[in-house]
Amino acid sequence: MAKNYEMAVLIDFYGEMLTEKQRSFLEYYYNDDLSLSEIAENEGITRQGVRDAIKRAESQMLEMEERLGLAERFSEVSKKLKEIIECTDKITQYNIRHGISKEINDYSLEIKSAALTLLEI
Amino acid sequence: MAKNYEMAVLIDFYGEMLTEKQRSFLEYYYNDDLSLSEIAENEGITRQGVRDAIKRAESQMLEMEERLGLAERFSEVSKKLKEIIECTDKITQYNIRHGISKEINDYSLEIKSAALTLLEI
Repeated sequence: MAKNYEMAVLIDFYGEMLTEKQRSFLEYYYNDDLSLSEIAENEGITRQGVRDAIKRAESQMLEMEERLGLAERFSEVSKKLKEIIECTDKITQYNIRHGISKEINDYSLEIKSAALTLLEI
Repeated sequence: MAKNYEMAVLIDFYGEMLTEKQRSFLEYYYNDDLSLSEIAENEGITRQGVRDAIKRAESQMLEMEERLGLAERFSEVSKKLKEIIECTDKITQYNIRHGISKEINDYSLEIKSAALTLLEI
């Protein structure tokens, strides 16, 4: 069972579709970095029980990603938004170098602010 | 049972989480605008059976939206992207009026093209 970045992303997107218990186990395991044995001891169940619960939750999330593809879409969106932000920075720099226009600078900052907000949604 | 725009959006986002049969019924009802009776006749089941299946599918999608909020997030994202596109148009117009800079025009078009791509994702 690999502890990896991808699983954290899937929990972000699909955690709300799991049961409260599944979410807790995943949180202990991925966020708090507890071992299966530690979780088992805290919860008063077997290590295998914890392992099965986490595996099942992971499969459910992977199946949801297979169907809805949110994590993949988000990564594309995120890439494009960073391109947009880079462009606004280039416009700002060009403006500074050439002392051109307050209007264009303001529009460019407005675009950057909107793109930064979108990265948070 | 209201045939409305919102349901079409939910089908877009969550249709893949339903069974094939649920998806067909929703498609007949919402996209092809068949009546419950027409769907019932085509499928060889009762009108009430069709109605129940559609109602159940709708509840499932509403519950998923309650948990994941994709439709709501998408509507916010879409609004911000339109703001970005408007700003790029203003930069272009300003450039045309003031004959300023090919560089800024190119960056602005690059931003617009990225934002338009994002509206499609």
